[in-house]
Amino acid sequence: MTPAAATPTGPDNQAPALPRWKCRVAYDGTAFSGWQSQTDRNAVQDHLERRLAELFQAEVRLHGSGRTDAGVHARGQVFHVDAAWRHGPERLLAALRGGLPPSIQVQTAEVVDASFHARFSAMGKVYHYTLQQGGWADPFTNAFTWSIPRALDVAAMRAAAAVLVGRHDFRAFSAFGGEERESTVRTLMRLDLVEDGPRLRIEAEAEGFLYKMVRSLVGGLVYAGLGKLTPQRILELLAARERTAEIETAPPQGLCLMKVHYPEPWNR
Amino acid sequence: MTPAAATPTGPDNQAPALPRWKCRVAYDGTAFSGWQSQTDRNAVQDHLERRLAELFQAEVRLHGSGRTDAGVHARGQVFHVDAAWRHGPERLLAALRGGLPPSIQVQTAEVVDASFHARFSAMGKVYHYTLQQGGWADPFTNAFTWSIPRALDVAAMRAAAAVLVGRHDFRAFSAFGGEERESTVRTLMRLDLVEDGPRLRIEAEAEGFLYKMVRSLVGGLVYAGLGKLTPQRILELLAARERTAEIETAPPQGLCLMKVHYPEPWNR
Repeated sequence: MTPAAATPTGPDNQAPALPRWKCRVAYDGTAFSGWQSQTDRNAVQDHLERRLAELFQAEVRLHGSGRTDAGVHARGQVFHVDAAWRHGPERLLAALRGGLPPSIQVQTAEVVDASFHARFSAMGKVYHYTLQQGGWADPFTNAFTWSIPRALDVAAMRAAAAVLVGRHDFRAFSAFGGEERESTVRTLMRLDLVEDGPRLRIEAEAEGFLYKMVRSLVGGLVYAGLGKLTPQRILELLAARERTAEIETAPPQGLCLMKVHYPEPWNR
Repeated sequence: MTPAAATPTGPDNQAPALPRWKCRVAYDGTAFSGWQSQTDRNAVQDHLERRLAELFQAEVRLHGSGRTDAGVHARGQVFHVDAAWRHGPERLLAALRGGLPPSIQVQTAEVVDASFHARFSAMGKVYHYTLQQGGWADPFTNAFTWSIPRALDVAAMRAAAAVLVGRHDFRAFSAFGGEERESTVRTLMRLDLVEDGPRLRIEAEAEGFLYKMVRSLVGGLVYAGLGKLTPQRILELLAARERTAEIETAPPQGLCLMKVHYPEPWNR
């Protein structure tokens, strides 16, 4: 054994790899500047990194599965972070609970193989969007709901959803600002409408979504439900590949990231 | 007809009686200083009176069915107010919605006979208290739940509830600070426990409750569920008529005023 190989910092004189933690986090996004770190340091990521830095006594950079906008919520956001925490997941969760706003809750933590990456390993995402039709959400659900005072034609919304599901170029249903050569083709696997009294939940699942795509799909469905948009017109907008005022972006507070799908053994 | 009788202010030179409005209001109490008007002008009543004064262009005094403490919520609080509003209930509700925080929502408004009084006509009240056992409420329910990290013995809680239901002197289960001659006897008609996964809802109904009585009953039941209090000991505490440290006051955020009962035709 050579002296170099025997050093604790490893053969290349680099620090030894830290364990990788995969964490699932729920947040009420009302009071935060979205998921991704911001200059105001009030993003969910900022709060998590500050608390983790206290616990790990080190600079911390965590990696989320993707952004959520200001005001958007999550029940199943996932991030990973590399850290030399020696006290097990239960104490990590308890320590995080102690030092975070109650509107951010890290719910699971587990050590995973270093090949796991919260963003690049993700295979798909599920979002839910909650509407209240024909009236106004009450004070307990208002922060999680888009209230539409008029009644919606749910059958018309289902007909619109049927033409949106599948593999399409969704540029017209996004706030895509990238270069032309970047693909805006995505496969929308599911766009379901679930009625629950005056409440209506839209469930969207895809391998990946473009920027503001779910809220644009919801805006399109609501306009369909109000008689402003037909399935035929939606097909024309998809083909035109251009964002127009015919598609409204639904407000953020109705949106919630429910689940990030990963390959096994990470899909918990 | 005498001139006095013909004046618009009536035979006694008093202003004519204004119509009496009965209103039902829901509020998320998290950010308010309770129901009843406070010097900080941040009670729910303060917000309502300010908005009503704008709409009615007059000083406004409203009368609630009773107080709720800071942090306590309501789905069915009732108040009455006398006002010369000529535009009907729908426009009143819409105007209130426009000028109140979204965490306060006036849900119904109707003109009632002047014999109705929100407090003195009330025949009973229903409160719900929400617990989460064996873990922590998530960010979406945390502001409406008391989290008990340990599992609760619900059968023991039901046995404790059984001895509390009925007509008792509840002084030991209140923060009663009144004079000795005031009665602290109340009839607790219902104290039910409803399980919903890890959530547990306590439903309490009585003609009237003493100050902090529901939260004291909940504290007693939780201690019973943790093995700290037996039905026998609860009977002794009731008989002793003295508040002791054996009864914890449950925190406010789990409590919600659901319904105020009135005689017909006001019981809507």
